[in-house]
Amino acid sequence: MATFRPGTPDQTAFLDALIERGLLIPSGVPGVYGRGAAFERVRVGVDRAVDRAAAPDGAELMRFPPLLPKRQLEALGYLKNFPHLAGTIFGFEGNELEANEQFELASRHEDWSAYQHMSDLVLLPAACYPIYPAIAARGPLARGGTTVDGGGTYVFRQEPSGDPARLQMFHQREIARLGEPDTVVEWRDAWRDRAVGLLAGLGLAPVADIASDPFFGRQGRMLAASQREQALKFEVLVHIAGPEPTAVASFNYHHDHFAATYGLTMADGGVAHTACLGFGLERITLALFCTHGFDDATWPGAVRTELGLA
Amino acid sequence: MATFRPGTPDQTAFLDALIERGLLIPSGVPGVYGRGAAFERVRVGVDRAVDRAAAPDGAELMRFPPLLPKRQLEALGYLKNFPHLAGTIFGFEGNELEANEQFELASRHEDWSAYQHMSDLVLLPAACYPIYPAIAARGPLARGGTTVDGGGTYVFRQEPSGDPARLQMFHQREIARLGEPDTVVEWRDAWRDRAVGLLAGLGLAPVADIASDPFFGRQGRMLAASQREQALKFEVLVHIAGPEPTAVASFNYHHDHFAATYGLTMADGGVAHTACLGFGLERITLALFCTHGFDDATWPGAVRTELGLA
Repeated sequence: MATFRPGTPDQTAFLDALIERGLLIPSGVPGVYGRGAAFERVRVGVDRAVDRAAAPDGAELMRFPPLLPKRQLEALGYLKNFPHLAGTIFGFEGNELEANEQFELASRHEDWSAYQHMSDLVLLPAACYPIYPAIAARGPLARGGTTVDGGGTYVFRQEPSGDPARLQMFHQREIARLGEPDTVVEWRDAWRDRAVGLLAGLGLAPVADIASDPFFGRQGRMLAASQREQALKFEVLVHIAGPEPTAVASFNYHHDHFAATYGLTMADGGVAHTACLGFGLERITLALFCTHGFDDATWPGAVRTELGLA
Repeated sequence: MATFRPGTPDQTAFLDALIERGLLIPSGVPGVYGRGAAFERVRVGVDRAVDRAAAPDGAELMRFPPLLPKRQLEALGYLKNFPHLAGTIFGFEGNELEANEQFELASRHEDWSAYQHMSDLVLLPAACYPIYPAIAARGPLARGGTTVDGGGTYVFRQEPSGDPARLQMFHQREIARLGEPDTVVEWRDAWRDRAVGLLAGLGLAPVADIASDPFFGRQGRMLAASQREQALKFEVLVHIAGPEPTAVASFNYHHDHFAATYGLTMADGGVAHTACLGFGLERITLALFCTHGFDDATWPGAVRTELGLA
């Protein structure tokens, strides 16, 4: 089983209070919670606020289930960088005798993993991954490229934690930009500022910073340093519970990583690059409850209006 | 790998047309598709139509991620009835050397399953499952019980198929009723009729019928016969592509199955029973495109109004 990372005392207290008030509903597994009506109302409000901020992009809407073909995870090199975070899907392929044996073991909560076989699916680790092959399948990009709004899709990270801001399954609200390198970088940088404005408008105190991904192992530390040096990743951070601010949005420039993997090019023969942004909808929702209090009816009027609650 | 069930010629033609028009976006794995903007607009419209039909219930809203603790799947006996449909989640727990070995195998699209270990999570097989323990945790039910609206949650079934109406991951719009046996049965029966009205209002030709679940193996055939005999399950069926009508909603009386598993009782000491209903949002959406045509702008005005498209 993946290692459980306990929360700090204030993270634990915040989680307990969220559960006590029915905002989160415990499942018995850390980092996996149901959402009560008030939590969901605020989360949907945040999603709508991103809709409004994104309207000028005129993005094409696509929606994806929280699964990815295993073949794509393999082709993207995800297992080099984040083997510890991936979730793969296994299933049963046996006969009635084996089904009975599996059932008997499972009924006693014993190990029935030997009856499970790897399928051709994994859990979606990042909401933008299905977008690139879908666009590449249409052929080369016209001048100016395209923008795709992937909506707020559930993504999975195997990292059980006592910090309510570190969920194993959460909604990543994702928009991807595909086009000429300059176009893509300008879009990414503009969105970093747009995100700061959006979060400030919700009464939070956002700070933008250069960031790196949680790459695995010793090699990973070098990758992270290189990612920072090239300023490939920005994050916007706010205060939730805990000693450090928490990233609630990230803005990533992939250079030609996805374009090369899927053979995505510009119609004029030029190189295509990609960038994406992701808002962590649950984290922003948690920051709002942490900042403005547990009863959203008492939040400042401007925040309630912004979230469609007023 | 689970056995692929090819579609009939008209199911295959319907799927091809849905892809051609960008309503569904292929992932490379059968039964796993992205949704284009028009498909999603209609699907959300169906969800809202269920909201309106459900308003008189005054249900409490809860939302759950598409995961379930493995322990619950084990306790519920799901693996006795549907071992072939379950999806379990595995992850990596090794060191850097093992991560490199896993990565090398994966990069060549070879078998890396030996590096994956069973986690404490499975994919959610039915949207109502997380509701019962959440309500049971609050203690005994007051007179009249309670109703919970679980929203439109993604659920998983390992059954790769060429029939676009048989998805491996789809939105099950679920409402559960918990209370005295009579209360629960009346609610279930009333909803069967309400669902027929709702679907007829969308220009479909719904038919209600007694049904059974796709239980596994020879024992399963007896379970299915018993389920039919006791009329525990109703379905509402409509025409999509294919020779037979397709179930798009189901109405299930669980007797004391969930109540007994989670120790759910009535406050007066009486027995608690449960029932649930589920609308297959993608199936209803497919039926609408099949019935009214691929361009939702040309659909009958009353249908468009009902779906919030007009």
